[in-house]
Amino acid sequence: MNPPVRTIQLPLNARVLEANDRIAAENRAEFERRKILAINLIGAPGCGKTALLEATLRALSGGRRPAVLVGDLTTRRDGDRLERWCDQVVQISTGQGCHLEAHQVRDALGQIDLSRVDYLFIENVGNLICPVGFDLGQAVTVGLFSLTEGDDKAAKHPYLVESADLLLLNKVDLLPHLSFDRAGFAADVRLLNPEVPVLDVSATTGEGLDAWLSWLERRAVGGA
Amino acid sequence: MNPPVRTIQLPLNARVLEANDRIAAENRAEFERRKILAINLIGAPGCGKTALLEATLRALSGGRRPAVLVGDLTTRRDGDRLERWCDQVVQISTGQGCHLEAHQVRDALGQIDLSRVDYLFIENVGNLICPVGFDLGQAVTVGLFSLTEGDDKAAKHPYLVESADLLLLNKVDLLPHLSFDRAGFAADVRLLNPEVPVLDVSATTGEGLDAWLSWLERRAVGGA
Repeated sequence: MNPPVRTIQLPLNARVLEANDRIAAENRAEFERRKILAINLIGAPGCGKTALLEATLRALSGGRRPAVLVGDLTTRRDGDRLERWCDQVVQISTGQGCHLEAHQVRDALGQIDLSRVDYLFIENVGNLICPVGFDLGQAVTVGLFSLTEGDDKAAKHPYLVESADLLLLNKVDLLPHLSFDRAGFAADVRLLNPEVPVLDVSATTGEGLDAWLSWLERRAVGGA
Repeated sequence: MNPPVRTIQLPLNARVLEANDRIAAENRAEFERRKILAINLIGAPGCGKTALLEATLRALSGGRRPAVLVGDLTTRRDGDRLERWCDQVVQISTGQGCHLEAHQVRDALGQIDLSRVDYLFIENVGNLICPVGFDLGQAVTVGLFSLTEGDDKAAKHPYLVESADLLLLNKVDLLPHLSFDRAGFAADVRLLNPEVPVLDVSATTGEGLDAWLSWLERRAVGGA
């Protein structure tokens, strides 16, 4: 009952994570030195990460200066969507990689003029599990769930909920068409992380975007 | 530009996959000997894997005899839902593991009376990436997308589309409330896998379930 696959995985994972953490710490020091708020955005495929960022970039226009790193297996689709709203977007192709790692962020930073960035949004690969284990050097971790995924998703992804500084619940415009227990979802979150705020948003209608932008502003290095 | 993290990962992954493939082959031989159709069901969190299986188990009542293995990080919620419709359900808790592996399936089979199983549904962990790389010994791989995830998800998950024997597009009852390019989705699928059938289904309304059950029946070992 102690499968060999598991046994040989452990030492390597520890080495990988140690290497990752070292680079993440360097990224974090760089962000702090430059007063950049780095946001690691984690959510399932199709939860609306890119749509939320599109709406966010549009709303920021003329205010805080954004840059975006966006991780995906193969396509450039998300990057292409985001470039309409932001002149500093770097697409990171992970191949078969199911999460971003700190060295990929570090390498992508070389393609960005950091002297004109206030918010660095890092859209992680669509996955609720693996990205949680890899620190990228972010100041804050934002977990994005969507109503259409069902009300059990917080309980089923405890590591994300525990490590998140903010949870966003997207696609609230679809509530009339779904069966979703909002109170049950909130109760599951509270059990795992009593402190984390949960904001309802709709990237489609813009509902809740003000609260999300205000939250970012409060976290911004250097204040308003 | 050849990050050390990647370099040290490769040899181990090869060993892990080799060990996994050996056990998967043993599982597959066992399924074939017993004329069990094993189905590896892969989809994102909240795409409706469990809801589809609930509807499937209900529809099979009195026909082909099902058993279900269901993988999840921590909770028993999916298993509890499925046990209402099937007396042979085993929940596999993967902890922080983002996919099922063949040894977990092998161990779970010890809790099932295989002499009364025609269909073995294996509900993988909610994840469109990692489960694809781990053979479990299944006869068929079924990829489940849902309309609410957006029409770009086939293009963004080429490895699943390429390896799938069937794709199901769930939540078609929500089409009137969404912007989803059905033809574009189909075109992306065709580029990656010209042969794979795509069936529209709704686990909620039951639409498309007949076609899904007929597909299973045609694949069933021993015929109808």
